[in-house]
Amino acid sequence: MESSPARAATMADVARTAGVSRTAVSFVLNGRSDASIPEATRARILAAAEQMGYRRNAAARALASQRSGLFGLVTEIVTSPFAADIIKGAQWSAWQDERFLLIAPSETNQVMEEAAIEKLLEQRIEGLIIAASWHQQIRVPANAYQMPCVLVHCFDEEGRLPSIVPDEEAGGRVAARTLLAAGHRNIGHITLPTGTPAQVGRLRGFGAELSTAGAPLADRLIVAGDGTAESGYRGASELLDGPNPPTAIFCGNDRMAMGAYDAIKERGLRIPQEISIVGFDDQQALADCLRPGLTTVALPYEEMGAAGVRKLTELTTGSRETSSHLALDCPLRQRSSVGIALR
Amino acid sequence: MESSPARAATMADVARTAGVSRTAVSFVLNGRSDASIPEATRARILAAAEQMGYRRNAAARALASQRSGLFGLVTEIVTSPFAADIIKGAQWSAWQDERFLLIAPSETNQVMEEAAIEKLLEQRIEGLIIAASWHQQIRVPANAYQMPCVLVHCFDEEGRLPSIVPDEEAGGRVAARTLLAAGHRNIGHITLPTGTPAQVGRLRGFGAELSTAGAPLADRLIVAGDGTAESGYRGASELLDGPNPPTAIFCGNDRMAMGAYDAIKERGLRIPQEISIVGFDDQQALADCLRPGLTTVALPYEEMGAAGVRKLTELTTGSRETSSHLALDCPLRQRSSVGIALR
Repeated sequence: MESSPARAATMADVARTAGVSRTAVSFVLNGRSDASIPEATRARILAAAEQMGYRRNAAARALASQRSGLFGLVTEIVTSPFAADIIKGAQWSAWQDERFLLIAPSETNQVMEEAAIEKLLEQRIEGLIIAASWHQQIRVPANAYQMPCVLVHCFDEEGRLPSIVPDEEAGGRVAARTLLAAGHRNIGHITLPTGTPAQVGRLRGFGAELSTAGAPLADRLIVAGDGTAESGYRGASELLDGPNPPTAIFCGNDRMAMGAYDAIKERGLRIPQEISIVGFDDQQALADCLRPGLTTVALPYEEMGAAGVRKLTELTTGSRETSSHLALDCPLRQRSSVGIALR
Repeated sequence: MESSPARAATMADVARTAGVSRTAVSFVLNGRSDASIPEATRARILAAAEQMGYRRNAAARALASQRSGLFGLVTEIVTSPFAADIIKGAQWSAWQDERFLLIAPSETNQVMEEAAIEKLLEQRIEGLIIAASWHQQIRVPANAYQMPCVLVHCFDEEGRLPSIVPDEEAGGRVAARTLLAAGHRNIGHITLPTGTPAQVGRLRGFGAELSTAGAPLADRLIVAGDGTAESGYRGASELLDGPNPPTAIFCGNDRMAMGAYDAIKERGLRIPQEISIVGFDDQQALADCLRPGLTTVALPYEEMGAAGVRKLTELTTGSRETSSHLALDCPLRQRSSVGIALR
């Protein structure tokens, strides 16, 4: 392979070649408009820079401007890619603003997490995003407070830091409205592990919307799942084998919906003709591949990542607005698992 | 939230507080052992640095040492997280070596890809990894040759750059041996899209191993799929409804295996009692959630990412070894979809 040139061209090199001062080169190459440099000189400098392959040195600029152009992202998502679209959204948002994300993998281990942030601080990041793969309350590492910091898909107990989370409750209402609109009144729900923000919010929104519609969720139709496909299989089996089985099931996540599909098919029932299913999360690898495709409520991963970067950009450019907790909508992803209720 | 201090403490600040020269501070804080600084002075400097919250400035070090400690990673994986474990492996490997990965999202668009690399070059990365979400030949952006560069899960036509790919052919042999060991001789295969390295390699290895065992793959038992669950469903249906249906099917990827499961269950057949299935990729979100769990051949994503970083580290530290194309093993992930052949 080709090797890199012995030494990168500097502004001084460009100045020598163009026969102008280093200051003139600096003004032109940094795009400063507050200096009156003749057009001919400007053109000569740009030509010399191009010819010599001059490249701006981010480290030098960072030192001079105290602005590194770097945001840090600490997350366990790199080791648990379930919520990878958070990184995707943050990455794109940063990229469009000509910033880079420095990503450091985190562990639940507090010591390692602080070490990761320390490494990022050494790189002179301007701000930090802490992102989680599932919606949860976190303990913020002490050194995260040393710079602007935004929490994505998580929050701190005292609400000291701005956070971007999904509006789980509104998502639960979306699921309910989808099934109500198809005429279902006898609806079951398989829940996530008790006490998590996702479980609490989704159930609350779902139940509230059903009550408003005059079809309140019966206790006997709420089955506890644990988030796995296996628990969805068991939950759906319980609902289907019970008295007056529901015509539709809202599964707390897509994995449980996958297990529910198996239970339904084993009983010779057809989706969506005989029973309707709505999931939550929009895990594409599952939702797209299920037969029929799974209608589900999407977690706004990409939007959360992008909103985190935007919020951080505001903070690093001086904004100090107070309203800093953002709950983003969870939109419906319509596929083919919801049909008209026949009874 | 707390705001960051107005200005980070510099070595000069530490020197003033400790009442020593800036040079002495620099030697102590950079861990240089080639200067005889009295222990008491060293202790005073460290205490002052700690008290003032002095933090090494990576940008300054990078300028001074010409070593940024940064590797660049250009990849579409952030926008297509199927192969996210490549990032995980690379990230961890870099992290353990006290380096950071700067990740830039790429597009198939050549102009954007070169722009991404240009951004990374501005950050003075020491080397570059280009990673793909599926095994393919790529056109290397021209500016990638300006520094050490390693390709992961892809390769260039002329083989100029070192590359790390999965050994698809060996993976195909693993699938065949797994089914042969369970006594199967009448085995079907649903292929990936024709001409891709994965399709060619997996089929070749699978067929060769069956031939060696005296149970060659019959043409009528090779069905063309396109990688989707739907094509797996169609392929398995064709195999099961044909004359003398196979007792086992090797699916070219896990998504097609998911579709095959549906076709099998619709026909009232049990996995693995009546028919065995082996997949490829080890997409955990699918393989773990299928009922029964899918036995599959794993793509070594994490290992490829780690090997890419190791190779790049070698290149940036002066190694110029010639053998630089690495094909990594694809190990079996045993779950519950392979049973003993009964006929």
